[in-house]
Amino acid sequence: MQKLSKALRPAVALRRISSGSSAAANFDLNGVFVPIPTPYKTNGDVDYGALAFNFERWEKIPFRGYCVGGSNGEGPYLKAEEKIEMVSKIRSMIGKDKLLIAGTTCESTKMTCDLSKATAEVGADGVLVMSPFYFKTRMTEESLYEHFVSVADSCPAPVIVYNMVPVTGIDLSVEILKKMSLHPNIVGVKDKDMGKLAALVTETRDQRFQIVAGSASYLLAAMLVGCSGGINGLAAVLGEPLCKMHELASAGRWQEALELQRKLVNIDLLLMQECGPAGLKAAMELLGYRGGLCRSPLPPITNEKVAKIKLTLEKDGFL
Amino acid sequence: MQKLSKALRPAVALRRISSGSSAAANFDLNGVFVPIPTPYKTNGDVDYGALAFNFERWEKIPFRGYCVGGSNGEGPYLKAEEKIEMVSKIRSMIGKDKLLIAGTTCESTKMTCDLSKATAEVGADGVLVMSPFYFKTRMTEESLYEHFVSVADSCPAPVIVYNMVPVTGIDLSVEILKKMSLHPNIVGVKDKDMGKLAALVTETRDQRFQIVAGSASYLLAAMLVGCSGGINGLAAVLGEPLCKMHELASAGRWQEALELQRKLVNIDLLLMQECGPAGLKAAMELLGYRGGLCRSPLPPITNEKVAKIKLTLEKDGFL
Amino acid sequence: MQKLSKALRPAVALRRISSGSSAAANFDLNGVFVPIPTPYKTNGDVDYGALAFNFERWEKIPFRGYCVGGSNGEGPYLKAEEKIEMVSKIRSMIGKDKLLIAGTTCESTKMTCDLSKATAEVGADGVLVMSPFYFKTRMTEESLYEHFVSVADSCPAPVIVYNMVPVTGIDLSVEILKKMSLHPNIVGVKDKDMGKLAALVTETRDQRFQIVAGSASYLLAAMLVGCSGGINGLAAVLGEPLCKMHELASAGRWQEALELQRKLVNIDLLLMQECGPAGLKAAMELLGYRGGLCRSPLPPITNEKVAKIKLTLEKDGFL
Amino acid sequence: MQKLSKALRPAVALRRISSGSSAAANFDLNGVFVPIPTPYKTNGDVDYGALAFNFERWEKIPFRGYCVGGSNGEGPYLKAEEKIEMVSKIRSMIGKDKLLIAGTTCESTKMTCDLSKATAEVGADGVLVMSPFYFKTRMTEESLYEHFVSVADSCPAPVIVYNMVPVTGIDLSVEILKKMSLHPNIVGVKDKDMGKLAALVTETRDQRFQIVAGSASYLLAAMLVGCSGGINGLAAVLGEPLCKMHELASAGRWQEALELQRKLVNIDLLLMQECGPAGLKAAMELLGYRGGLCRSPLPPITNEKVAKIKLTLEKDGFL
Repeated sequence: MQKLSKALRPAVALRRISSGSSAAANFDLNGVFVPIPTPYKTNGDVDYGALAFNFERWEKIPFRGYCVGGSNGEGPYLKAEEKIEMVSKIRSMIGKDKLLIAGTTCESTKMTCDLSKATAEVGADGVLVMSPFYFKTRMTEESLYEHFVSVADSCPAPVIVYNMVPVTGIDLSVEILKKMSLHPNIVGVKDKDMGKLAALVTETRDQRFQIVAGSASYLLAAMLVGCSGGINGLAAVLGEPLCKMHELASAGRWQEALELQRKLVNIDLLLMQECGPAGLKAAMELLGYRGGLCRSPLPPITNEKVAKIKLTLEKDGFL
Repeated sequence: MQKLSKALRPAVALRRISSGSSAAANFDLNGVFVPIPTPYKTNGDVDYGALAFNFERWEKIPFRGYCVGGSNGEGPYLKAEEKIEMVSKIRSMIGKDKLLIAGTTCESTKMTCDLSKATAEVGADGVLVMSPFYFKTRMTEESLYEHFVSVADSCPAPVIVYNMVPVTGIDLSVEILKKMSLHPNIVGVKDKDMGKLAALVTETRDQRFQIVAGSASYLLAAMLVGCSGGINGLAAVLGEPLCKMHELASAGRWQEALELQRKLVNIDLLLMQECGPAGLKAAMELLGYRGGLCRSPLPPITNEKVAKIKLTLEKDGFL
Repeated sequence: MQKLSKALRPAVALRRISSGSSAAANFDLNGVFVPIPTPYKTNGDVDYGALAFNFERWEKIPFRGYCVGGSNGEGPYLKAEEKIEMVSKIRSMIGKDKLLIAGTTCESTKMTCDLSKATAEVGADGVLVMSPFYFKTRMTEESLYEHFVSVADSCPAPVIVYNMVPVTGIDLSVEILKKMSLHPNIVGVKDKDMGKLAALVTETRDQRFQIVAGSASYLLAAMLVGCSGGINGLAAVLGEPLCKMHELASAGRWQEALELQRKLVNIDLLLMQECGPAGLKAAMELLGYRGGLCRSPLPPITNEKVAKIKLTLEKDGFL
Repeated sequence: MQKLSKALRPAVALRRISSGSSAAANFDLNGVFVPIPTPYKTNGDVDYGALAFNFERWEKIPFRGYCVGGSNGEGPYLKAEEKIEMVSKIRSMIGKDKLLIAGTTCESTKMTCDLSKATAEVGADGVLVMSPFYFKTRMTEESLYEHFVSVADSCPAPVIVYNMVPVTGIDLSVEILKKMSLHPNIVGVKDKDMGKLAALVTETRDQRFQIVAGSASYLLAAMLVGCSGGINGLAAVLGEPLCKMHELASAGRWQEALELQRKLVNIDLLLMQECGPAGLKAAMELLGYRGGLCRSPLPPITNEKVAKIKLTLEKDGFL
């Protein structure tokens, strides 16, 4: 197993040192990130007490960092001011060694630049940005490239491009992503297509550019082909085995990692594909975190689904 | 032709008088609305000078009213504060008899309620709301119904539901739309499917509920089956013939209306389907309005497309 | 009302006489066509007894003709030989004045040409052809144009292009359809988009080219803008009112036509959009036709849906 | 590396011995399959001379077998009789140890059963079947389950389910696929979603059921989580390195396998995603195989794409 670990690790190391002196050069996505669900008080406001409760537990797990305001955090339901406040307050709840990433996707370039800059100024170490998609039939690769470059040019924190096809209906090509990777402040890409992850690793292996897996269900496979880590909703509830799997794979102990991967895949598909944010929050409640309800119009999870989540967690020994 | 006009007009009249005393009861969508494109200054701010210039001309055309912050107005690229300011300022640029509708679609129910109320308070006579669609795979008819009802309950101005399938990927059924139509403050629906428009007219004919066509290319056909009017991007550039067509159809002069409809269909498909907001703005420039550029990331229109727009306008005698 | 009827009818007449001497020149789509559902015996074979039973009734209705092997006829579940046999046998069941159209869509150009020719040789007066769509991401407008032209060149009977976007995922543009309309043996197009129907009528009004509506729910609206008629599944069960509506509209009696259109729209949306072929067959059974089951894997209709169909037919006075 | 190889290999072995005595029990998908492109003579007929030429080379590569009439073989453009003849003739061109799989997807259950049985009778060792999708909005999991079970019940050869979402628009769930896996004559599934591949391996690990990767771009990753092998278009042109990668991974030599995977990913994405069947045939010509043109309406590949294919092959050292 040593041989494989050597094959993978130098690539990561190379990336870290081949760049300059900026924040981007030191930005290392090597590990597991929690895209944190957003808990609410009964009046609908963000519940910082619940967040603090959850972070107390999360901080005992060797995550690489957290992401605020992504899909799992009901990002589209958070106002810009709420996202900025959350970044600011969460920054003080987590260790200095933890990276804090803000999901700052907006439809217009200017709004995305403004929000990215604002979150960076209150503590975001990086921003995660999806393609704008309201006018998806009008977008060109050039206009999308310009969009991401504008954000990268104006944001003090590094930018991670999120190629989130199921939501946006836009699939950024390997070519345009490679072109983006040449920008000094675009440091990585999160994608969901396994072939594309491998192609991106291959195409950018001489650069300090990092590829991140969008789902825990194939994180190990993604690491095999050279991905750095994952920003995975499952980490909110099963952070320990996920981090352990990442650690084992990084150490070349693939067999043990594989056993964990197999235990994580069913619950991941159930929560992320079948249920969505409300299901992840239900799983949090089952596992002792504070989840609560989603904002409207996301419907509450059915009792039937909660029972299925409980059963799956029990079956795989997590409950 | 008298017979047809009688068949159509009483239905409209019936709607107007069958309801109570609220704003909703007096809300009459019978006519053509301009979903106004938003002009920008070189620094990117909304250009109220250009808006005033355009309204000076639009106000000479017998429109039923205007819509601010819709797709043609690059609504997704306008901040909430910008939309509120635009409603407020435009209210003073237009006649008291003109209805001003605000496009207030947001992803969360609360944000939609807040923006709807805010625009109503500064002068919007009605609000136009699409289904939230970021989490489209999670939505249920119930959760969408609750969403629209929450907006209708809290907004002082009447609500028009916009079933915009090409953007949202969600198609509200006739049944759920009919259920929405029973709410006293949901006064109409804008749809793009001709069969559905006819079904909605049929299903709600005893109520004060109005059906609006989403495209000028089939406005006449929609009126034949009982639709009240249209909120049509083409009105920004060819308002006179569009209003004339609506007037002729309302007067039962279908033959003349049909001749106009035939002249309007090509330019409508070209601008609305093939080109989008940037094409509509290019046509505005060609016809003496102030259009200008769109906000990023909407790409500028190509010279080739401008030439095609020019040719089509000339061919149909509009230039 | 005379004025409107005059505006519409000359256009149709013009088309009929402006062409040469071929079958295409005499091909007149002006009327209602039944896309006939295919009944099966218990062993799964086509049930010609049931077909004869149905045709005995259909032949008393002033249809313009019939279509064999379309979507409503479970065309994709019929072998080429079955389609050819059906055309041959049905030809002898119907009047000489009735047009018989064969749905001959196949994936390869050669198979489409062969089947089109074979059905024409046994009695099809025309063929209805959709865009091949298995490799939809590979198709170009040029390759699709060549496909339809190859069929038109080799088929003794005229070709009607069917732009069936919900199934194919390919939307033929007005421009390419106009280009196709110049081929002497491409005589019409069936489409589902109302704006496009109007544009096609406008663009081809000087030619002997006919536009056909894909759904009974907007047939009247389509006729208003100049469409010739419809190939509508609903005709299999409610042929009398549909033909009556077509007749009234052709005679300029729009008011009466409109009253029928309003009665037909709900049942049409229920059968065609909500239920599909199994629902249409259930409605046939309720109305005294022989429908029966669909071939696998089309699932049988639920009792719940049958009850809804029954209720809707009763409500609109058809049962 | 020994440890990983041990972890993976027993699982495969277990599958092979845990079943009965039928053809299904001995059906082993462990390896690389070529979904062979179909060459044509200038008159459009299948070119068996060209096939024999290609097989002479393919037979020197340690493939597990071949697949006839899949997407890469322009299956939808082949008549049933052509597929049957191809299976029969190809059976005599290949070694007895090579598995021959026939792609027998049809829309109706009966046609699929008939074609599956017919190909099995002339030499197919297994059949590969996609979900019928013409009526995709009408399908239920139950009706699809019944479809696959009917084929499996009637076909003398084992059935592999192909969950080909980009073409069918239907995504078979892990649950329904697991239920299918319990049928004695359904021996495997080909899928394209990495998370699902892992879930399927996990859910069926105690059975003699095999999971196959749909693309060479992530074959190695798929093997890591327990997939048996791949049916990959790329094998038609780069069979040696693909088989070598499979062999290395099977032997636990992951580092060397990874180096090959990285070289194969770009050309795979280019040929399979960007170009399609015409691109694969162009690559065949460049590498000394006989490719030729596709049947209409598949358009010929552009010179630009051929140049890009050539460049990519050269860059990765394959030309």
